[in-house]
Amino acid sequence: MQHRMDEKIEHLVETLRSDYTEGRTIDALIKFDHPDKDIVIGLIYKLRQLIFPGYFRNQNYRVYTLRNQVSMLLEDIIYNLTKQITIVLEYIPEMKVSGAAMMAAKAEEITFAFLEKIPQIRDFIEADVEATYDGDPAAFNKDEIIYSYPGLFAIFVNRIAHELHLLGVPLIPRIMTEYAHSQTGIDIHPGATLGRYFFIDHGTGIVIGETTVIGDNVKVYQGVTLGALSTRGGQQLKSKKRHPTICDNVTIYSGASILGGDTVIGKDVVVGANAFITHSVPEGAKVSIKTQELRFRYDSKKPLPEDDDNAWYYII
Amino acid sequence: MQHRMDEKIEHLVETLRSDYTEGRTIDALIKFDHPDKDIVIGLIYKLRQLIFPGYFRNQNYRVYTLRNQVSMLLEDIIYNLTKQITIVLEYIPEMKVSGAAMMAAKAEEITFAFLEKIPQIRDFIEADVEATYDGDPAAFNKDEIIYSYPGLFAIFVNRIAHELHLLGVPLIPRIMTEYAHSQTGIDIHPGATLGRYFFIDHGTGIVIGETTVIGDNVKVYQGVTLGALSTRGGQQLKSKKRHPTICDNVTIYSGASILGGDTVIGKDVVVGANAFITHSVPEGAKVSIKTQELRFRYDSKKPLPEDDDNAWYYII
Amino acid sequence: MQHRMDEKIEHLVETLRSDYTEGRTIDALIKFDHPDKDIVIGLIYKLRQLIFPGYFRNQNYRVYTLRNQVSMLLEDIIYNLTKQITIVLEYIPEMKVSGAAMMAAKAEEITFAFLEKIPQIRDFIEADVEATYDGDPAAFNKDEIIYSYPGLFAIFVNRIAHELHLLGVPLIPRIMTEYAHSQTGIDIHPGATLGRYFFIDHGTGIVIGETTVIGDNVKVYQGVTLGALSTRGGQQLKSKKRHPTICDNVTIYSGASILGGDTVIGKDVVVGANAFITHSVPEGAKVSIKTQELRFRYDSKKPLPEDDDNAWYYII
Repeated sequence: MQHRMDEKIEHLVETLRSDYTEGRTIDALIKFDHPDKDIVIGLIYKLRQLIFPGYFRNQNYRVYTLRNQVSMLLEDIIYNLTKQITIVLEYIPEMKVSGAAMMAAKAEEITFAFLEKIPQIRDFIEADVEATYDGDPAAFNKDEIIYSYPGLFAIFVNRIAHELHLLGVPLIPRIMTEYAHSQTGIDIHPGATLGRYFFIDHGTGIVIGETTVIGDNVKVYQGVTLGALSTRGGQQLKSKKRHPTICDNVTIYSGASILGGDTVIGKDVVVGANAFITHSVPEGAKVSIKTQELRFRYDSKKPLPEDDDNAWYYII
Repeated sequence: MQHRMDEKIEHLVETLRSDYTEGRTIDALIKFDHPDKDIVIGLIYKLRQLIFPGYFRNQNYRVYTLRNQVSMLLEDIIYNLTKQITIVLEYIPEMKVSGAAMMAAKAEEITFAFLEKIPQIRDFIEADVEATYDGDPAAFNKDEIIYSYPGLFAIFVNRIAHELHLLGVPLIPRIMTEYAHSQTGIDIHPGATLGRYFFIDHGTGIVIGETTVIGDNVKVYQGVTLGALSTRGGQQLKSKKRHPTICDNVTIYSGASILGGDTVIGKDVVVGANAFITHSVPEGAKVSIKTQELRFRYDSKKPLPEDDDNAWYYII
Repeated sequence: MQHRMDEKIEHLVETLRSDYTEGRTIDALIKFDHPDKDIVIGLIYKLRQLIFPGYFRNQNYRVYTLRNQVSMLLEDIIYNLTKQITIVLEYIPEMKVSGAAMMAAKAEEITFAFLEKIPQIRDFIEADVEATYDGDPAAFNKDEIIYSYPGLFAIFVNRIAHELHLLGVPLIPRIMTEYAHSQTGIDIHPGATLGRYFFIDHGTGIVIGETTVIGDNVKVYQGVTLGALSTRGGQQLKSKKRHPTICDNVTIYSGASILGGDTVIGKDVVVGANAFITHSVPEGAKVSIKTQELRFRYDSKKPLPEDDDNAWYYII
């Protein structure tokens, strides 16, 4: 019996080894080091400690003074972020030819440039906490927002990922925002630019595309898409402006879609729930869909027809 | 080189320390102890072991008898829950002035009052398992529901969080329900009251607001919002009834929105997919949207216009 | 005081022990071994290492040669998968009566039959990576897709869970797909059949039901439901074809719902955003909803009426 098991395993090993030699994308074995997804996700939480120093426990460092705590946390971030950036710089052909030493130096330079932005990021995040508190009557206090609101978490991750994106770091920003997406159902591409005092309520089902630009004091509710009109062009559309521009003081209620790179939503606009917008909207306008016509029936004892074109749709 | 690195880190440490002194919300450093999010989430899983004693392995306790297992699990829950409640009671001004001993005593009292509710919670959860099995032809058996259904997990977390909410515990209930939200895409505020034999199918994208009241034998599908009509009042609307009341035996199909604190959906009502309801619906009614007008085109060889007002919308 | 605490805990223990004797589903204590959810989820990640050997670090095995790495990973998977399958085979009455030895032999047979499918699964997943890269201008490169795209993760988990489902394994496939659901907001039942070169963009809010059949080269966007028309039949509808058939080269834009077991979407069809389809669509058709009528108002200084039937809906 044991002999037969050995043979079966041996057969599987050989089948797989042979399958790994097809030269496809997923067969890549001896590439340069890949970024480490766990370390990148760990960096999100270390940066959160740096940004909210009193709120999240740093269980790794048993130090008493804030000075030492910040110092050790920073060294940890610098070490890991520089290493991960060095790895992903190989994805940029011009960097790759420059050699390992140049890439390491560039990664260190990017890491410090990024960390210099932390006070500015903190300034924006403080305003996001305010916007959330001011906008949501269900918020007990600001600590509840910091500890539990998915919208604030997604915005925080975008703010750090966006700075890394602006500094030309590939892959790492997207791994960060897709992690936030998996935790919150809020999909904000690291390329998207978010203004000051930004509020996302509930959040699940929100998509904010790569080339979206959002002004200050904007509110977005669940199920909103800020998207492209078409991607039939595929990779040829890369880095073209495909997503809308949202000006200051705009509110976008749940389920609304705003599409297209030329679409500009003017200042102070309110977009009603479920509106589907593919053209610019002038400043100050309130846009809503025509009131939905509802049908009522009261013959509750008769069974409903299973498949009646004019009446009931059940989705499971 | 090392010297330069030291200087750069030193500079960053000083920049951050100075940034932490701005007196903003996120600068809070020496506050009372914060609730520990990891411990609160751990309590969800410990309470799940207590509620489904045969289903989830208790890997911490190596004991043989059910008596010892329950006993050790309870002591663990009592210790951690009392400690976390003591911490968050400081958020209530009247409690804070009463002093540490009073708060600890109050926290212990709340913990025991909560634990006395477990049999009642178990009774409701058993009915939720039944409702899910009866409602979903894709369910292989009830164990599959207990092990894998996100709707049941979100309902279970609401049932424990809601009891803590009723006992006046701040923050902890919301941390619990937002954790369930992050795991399931189902956002049920701990203030929402759920009736007996409640079934959520699929679940992603569901929002059930703070002051929602739901009767017995209600079914809710993916993408449903039970929400408020407006929150322009912000914090002034706190604790006002802003969300609907759903009576017994109501079914709400996918994508429907029911809004407003005065909106009452009567007994036995069926709400069709994607209906948008802002007024009360009388008992026994079936509400649906008018059949959507679809457009068909068959000139499949001609390329589609990229931006044609009357035809195709592509969202990415 | 300590004495009183002891009494209170004792009282709770007795209350719970008595509550566990009601004979309900959730009271089951001494059943056969349950499947271990953590081990099943762990198997997803071990299978991912086998399928993308160069992309995800195997931190458990410190071996140098690919041969040893594959061999150790395979033995780990065989051991754990066989054990979990043996446990769940007890859910099948005919297996249960056959006795423990027969079930273990059957579980081993299934495990090897499943592992023989890995090269075929890899072939499909390579095509999924290609489809994602070709379809998304926001994708930096294929590594970014493999490391961060939720759509690819959900498809990968369905492809392994579907093979186990076809081999007659209960519960485990669903635990796997519901884990992917919790990570991505994409709910694909393990019974659903996915064709070659499948692309899901963004993903949150997608539901693909148990008896759905999808052809090759199909694209699906966020918020799409491929569902049943009604489940009022509950458990009596089990294993009936309740979900649609999607032919080759179909694109389904965001928010669209396609419902019903008799609904066939023909080759090359494009379904526009938010379309609600309950009947078959012939080959080559482009289906869209009628352009939504929007209302614009510009009296931005006047406050909006809080509850105006003809105007604004705010959902929170």
